[in-house]
Amino acid sequence: MAHQVVQNGGGAEFKTVSFTAVKPQLVVEAPKAGDAISFYKAAFGAEEVSRSLHPKRKANQEVPLILSAQLLLGGTTILLSDGPDDSATPVKADSAGCILCLETDDVEAAVTKAVAAGAVAENGIEEGEGGACCGGRVGKLKDPYGFTWNICSAAATRLKSADLEA
Amino acid sequence: MAHQVVQNGGGAEFKTVSFTAVKPQLVVEAPKAGDAISFYKAAFGAEEVSRSLHPKRKANQEVPLILSAQLLLGGTTILLSDGPDDSATPVKADSAGCILCLETDDVEAAVTKAVAAGAVAENGIEEGEGGACCGGRVGKLKDPYGFTWNICSAAATRLKSADLEA
Repeated sequence: MAHQVVQNGGGAEFKTVSFTAVKPQLVVEAPKAGDAISFYKAAFGAEEVSRSLHPKRKANQEVPLILSAQLLLGGTTILLSDGPDDSATPVKADSAGCILCLETDDVEAAVTKAVAAGAVAENGIEEGEGGACCGGRVGKLKDPYGFTWNICSAAATRLKSADLEA
Repeated sequence: MAHQVVQNGGGAEFKTVSFTAVKPQLVVEAPKAGDAISFYKAAFGAEEVSRSLHPKRKANQEVPLILSAQLLLGGTTILLSDGPDDSATPVKADSAGCILCLETDDVEAAVTKAVAAGAVAENGIEEGEGGACCGGRVGKLKDPYGFTWNICSAAATRLKSADLEA
């Protein structure tokens, strides 16, 4: 984050960061995300908006792993993903659970501010593979209360995923 | 749920249930919810919309337990609560974690439909104390993928909390 040098300490000023959405991302034990999506449709009438599969899955995997599926439920978007299976990990979560995806136009500034407040950044900021979390750039944070946040660029700005596959 | 007799089985028809919101409810190890709220304000610029304290807390508790606080973050409402402490349990969660509050105008029908799809209802439908989850009536469900959902009446219809305290 050398391009975002911010002094942390008394009177430090941070860039104003605005967020455009919080989306709960439910990470399900692989490869059950597809079943979970069917369940949420049947149980709650959730509507599937999109589904992206993990591009690196092994050819011999019978069930494709879901990188990220967007479901619309009660006017809110929730995300469903298969959790870590083997090396083809769609989401680097510790285990199944709920991650909070927080969309912003400035991932670096948001991560910097949150870390200054006490969050712990994991792995720096990565280019998510198409559809990972909200797509685009992702900074993963663990907050002091045990919750994981994916600070990510907004879904509309899915940049560079084509470049990544080149 | 005697007033909502629905046949579960082939060709069973369920009432159409509509949901008005999904709100992630972050349950924090008591009594740290207040600290967590301060953190989310500092880290993410969250705005506190409301905070309700647990009415049954013991007089000798120095830190009031938070039953439910609403934070606005990225145009989305998230809820913060203190988790189980002692008998004065604001949220009957197994532990700290993320619960998904799903607001609807028909809690009974929503619970019935979800249970028919495979969710497990816990404790029947209860009258939440003012501010619990989304307020009003609450049916707690565990889904087959390990997530807990609070099916609750919409925040605007906080009925009967005065009656409950009579």
